[in-house]
Amino acid sequence: MKIGLIGFGKVSQNLINLIKSQDITFITSTEKRSQSTIESIKKSGIEVVDTFKEVALASDILISANSPKNAVDVAKEYGKYAKGIYLDLNNVSPDTTFKINEHVDNLVDGAVIGKIDSKNPILYLSGPKAHELEFLNEFIDIKIVSDRIGDAAILKLLRSTYTKTLSAILIESSEIAKKHDLEEDFFEILALSEGKDFKEKSESRINNTLNSKTRKSEELVEIINYFDDDELVMVKAALKKLSQ
Amino acid sequence: MKIGLIGFGKVSQNLINLIKSQDITFITSTEKRSQSTIESIKKSGIEVVDTFKEVALASDILISANSPKNAVDVAKEYGKYAKGIYLDLNNVSPDTTFKINEHVDNLVDGAVIGKIDSKNPILYLSGPKAHELEFLNEFIDIKIVSDRIGDAAILKLLRSTYTKTLSAILIESSEIAKKHDLEEDFFEILALSEGKDFKEKSESRINNTLNSKTRKSEELVEIINYFDDDELVMVKAALKKLSQ
Repeated sequence: MKIGLIGFGKVSQNLINLIKSQDITFITSTEKRSQSTIESIKKSGIEVVDTFKEVALASDILISANSPKNAVDVAKEYGKYAKGIYLDLNNVSPDTTFKINEHVDNLVDGAVIGKIDSKNPILYLSGPKAHELEFLNEFIDIKIVSDRIGDAAILKLLRSTYTKTLSAILIESSEIAKKHDLEEDFFEILALSEGKDFKEKSESRINNTLNSKTRKSEELVEIINYFDDDELVMVKAALKKLSQ
Repeated sequence: MKIGLIGFGKVSQNLINLIKSQDITFITSTEKRSQSTIESIKKSGIEVVDTFKEVALASDILISANSPKNAVDVAKEYGKYAKGIYLDLNNVSPDTTFKINEHVDNLVDGAVIGKIDSKNPILYLSGPKAHELEFLNEFIDIKIVSDRIGDAAILKLLRSTYTKTLSAILIESSEIAKKHDLEEDFFEILALSEGKDFKEKSESRINNTLNSKTRKSEELVEIINYFDDDELVMVKAALKKLSQ
């Protein structure tokens, strides 16, 4: 079996490391790649062909792992050559997933939960053909969400809905605690019900959010736009909180 | 040493069970009590006198454990007779604590965290005399917050700020997940970062909140009134969420 890679960043490189089997070979191309990427590809020792069109044609599974903003273009250009499964791992929104699906026959949409180079990344997959990738479970934790295209992306957005709104309430409540000179006690008293690592985890969430307010706000806007609904009271408040 | 009890509900009864020492005796009165309370008092075997005035006069530590709405009246009526420490355990707001302090000389304000009849209740105490109750640590976990009257109540309110707003985001995000038929996956994916008991804990929080919306809303109003501040974006949103 051949797995083709369009894109040779962290995701692709880690998949090569994780999926080691006599029955599976990887293939990619150096077409229009930067010098440093070409070096990485050479070092990996996988099969290299001249063009990504050839990669697509040769692959049983074609993996698109580039960047969210290139995901649709890659699907448009190479989707038509992919006869097997087309696995999108570009961390895109559900709407982008639906656009990709217009250009691809056997799309499986995937979301990596946890960092791909962490100890236990989990690959969430959805789409009618998702179950055909279950065999990868031997190499990386696979979770089939459903046979509906977009569900993996929606699930990732739902997770984000919770964690980003949570960060906003952590920011707000710890700010009030600080004003009353009770910040330490605040974290301590909540650790009783929320777990011993509450303070450490919360501070990391707060800092992480405050240090990238613009990006987090954009992600909240994306959530609001996708789950377009009057009832999104808390998410809208989180966006307001980040603009304070 | 004598500990006087005004009020003979769960808090008082559990304190009698927890604080067992040859050096400490409890005292209360059956004055104006219901028949069932009088039975409970008799069963407990503690010292009983005719009036609460006598209880106050005889006590080294006078504990007021009635209900939030009676807390000020009790302080007004018996505070003046208490020569030792007056410990308020009525679960009142910071503002009510300040009112009580007007009628009492040596107030210590306390907040029970965790149910009093649970395995490990913790008694948070504040006020200039709070440290004089540190010896109770032998019987029940004592945490001195500060020497400022009101800090124990403020800390409890801060905890409530976090937990009640959290319930609102759990309600909102799980509702969206449900709409997309991804509720189970939503809880499962978040358990990866939030802890194995995430689903169970969240469902209990959601049900607990939805089953007592009116009371939870009142508590949110109390939080908003006390931390009266334009920046309370998330708490105000939580109140709105509960009114949906």
